[in-house]
Amino acid sequence: MSFARIAIIGLGLQGGSIGLAVREFLPQARTTGYDVSPDHRARAAERRLVDSVCDTAAEAVREADLVIFCVPPGAMAMAAETVREALPADALVSDVGSSKQAIAKALGEALPDHVVIPAHPVAGTENSGPDAGFAHLFRNRWCIVTPPARVDMVRLSQLVSFWEALGANVEIMTAEHHDLVLAVTSHLPHLIAYTIVGTASDLEDVTQGEVIKYSAGGFRDFTRIAASDPTMWRDVFLSNKEAVLTMLQRFSEDLTALQRAIRVGDGDTLFQHFTRTRAIRRSIIEEGQDDSRPDFGRGDHDSAKNS
Amino acid sequence: MSFARIAIIGLGLQGGSIGLAVREFLPQARTTGYDVSPDHRARAAERRLVDSVCDTAAEAVREADLVIFCVPPGAMAMAAETVREALPADALVSDVGSSKQAIAKALGEALPDHVVIPAHPVAGTENSGPDAGFAHLFRNRWCIVTPPARVDMVRLSQLVSFWEALGANVEIMTAEHHDLVLAVTSHLPHLIAYTIVGTASDLEDVTQGEVIKYSAGGFRDFTRIAASDPTMWRDVFLSNKEAVLTMLQRFSEDLTALQRAIRVGDGDTLFQHFTRTRAIRRSIIEEGQDDSRPDFGRGDHDSAKNS
Repeated sequence: MSFARIAIIGLGLQGGSIGLAVREFLPQARTTGYDVSPDHRARAAERRLVDSVCDTAAEAVREADLVIFCVPPGAMAMAAETVREALPADALVSDVGSSKQAIAKALGEALPDHVVIPAHPVAGTENSGPDAGFAHLFRNRWCIVTPPARVDMVRLSQLVSFWEALGANVEIMTAEHHDLVLAVTSHLPHLIAYTIVGTASDLEDVTQGEVIKYSAGGFRDFTRIAASDPTMWRDVFLSNKEAVLTMLQRFSEDLTALQRAIRVGDGDTLFQHFTRTRAIRRSIIEEGQDDSRPDFGRGDHDSAKNS
Repeated sequence: MSFARIAIIGLGLQGGSIGLAVREFLPQARTTGYDVSPDHRARAAERRLVDSVCDTAAEAVREADLVIFCVPPGAMAMAAETVREALPADALVSDVGSSKQAIAKALGEALPDHVVIPAHPVAGTENSGPDAGFAHLFRNRWCIVTPPARVDMVRLSQLVSFWEALGANVEIMTAEHHDLVLAVTSHLPHLIAYTIVGTASDLEDVTQGEVIKYSAGGFRDFTRIAASDPTMWRDVFLSNKEAVLTMLQRFSEDLTALQRAIRVGDGDTLFQHFTRTRAIRRSIIEEGQDDSRPDFGRGDHDSAKNS
């Protein structure tokens, strides 16, 4: 039994993509949506991200059997509170947030009488807002569902089927493990990218123009994820603080070891480290999580002929 | 007056791309090439990276009016020494290395009677070896030429015209400034990418399979440059040690500041930092140094329709 009336609260990259994907892959379902920004609501209506853009969150959820909160982690509690009175008692509550323990707690406290099953589609681009979504965002990407210890298995399998219908592969794990895994695969990379882009723009002996000009040497790869939504990422770091700080500590230790190898001229240590990291890239490409074309196929060169 | 006989020593990504680009854009020039690996020489001949693949470096340079060393920074001195006896007295010597002060010194000492004008095309992909090159690698990319203080202007302008013919935009600066600029736009990003990929593969509480599976959350962007040639990058860090360590120190200070903001829950500092870094990304795209499509247009989704 699939969902018939899906309410999407927050119509940015994730919410908009869910709306468009439901229309394409679950055409029998009706979608309603709400965004706190009037401009975003207007644009969402123009792009037809959902069947009906509502003026309040309460109105959007009034007939829903599934409500998905697609707002930054720090806004989840407030968004959930605004719909509490209007939300049907048997509606399933879920979300798409990038940290799971803190969000599960926030949604559970705001909606204590509802079934809450958090989820996190590990899919995104550097763009945000109502223009960023597209129907195929979740295709061949993983969606991690983090049910509470005691969960209604029927509801869980309904949510799993929903994400599979949108093109995702679903994995189930605890919220705690999710937060550790994502700290290393997503949160730490974003923090480091934000840091280096900041460092590069603050130098006095190299101009910002030079940094931009010669960015093709490697720097530009970091700028993509450092262009991600600032509000969301502030909330991610604050809501997954412990796991991020743990991973950051390990990263700093490893960086110090390589720094020492450079300082003392220990080429063997550098070479061994750099050789090991190549294998990971190969595995990521083999599992279809990245593009094997050089430079991701970016740019206009003839790399497709490159063999 | 352009070069008529170009010798390319080292037939990997850079050397191979130069050979193919010369055939396409300077068809009147004749190219010879050599690679220390017999397998690479055989593959270079199959791909016709140069008109003639020679069995020794000396043979390759015997009639050259331009020789370009396309070997790792640490191999420049030895490569130059092997051609010293055979190289015509009026041949111009250049290279494509990623660090310039150390290479200028190595080439100058190995070939004291020749004119040496180092260069560095800021273009590349994560691939290496004789299969990696393609003719359009340098198109719309910068090539930095670092002439010595006293330089023959005719020779310099010949080299500039050569790179422009291959599609590059040429910039001239001192080797010292080059090394500082590239430390931040290329060397530091590579070091950090190598570090985080290593950190992620060494965790005991998150498996390598999980890291690969959920890499689309940001991690995969780092794996691309961490798959670059280990020998070359070992040599880059060792040959540009001071500038890399300086930039690394600044990066570490900035990372510590963000770490503290996370620890104490200072959302304002995080938000302000993350907002600032977006502008840099926009500038890089405006200047044509990266692809504006979400995810660089990578993957098979319909991002082109994304507006």
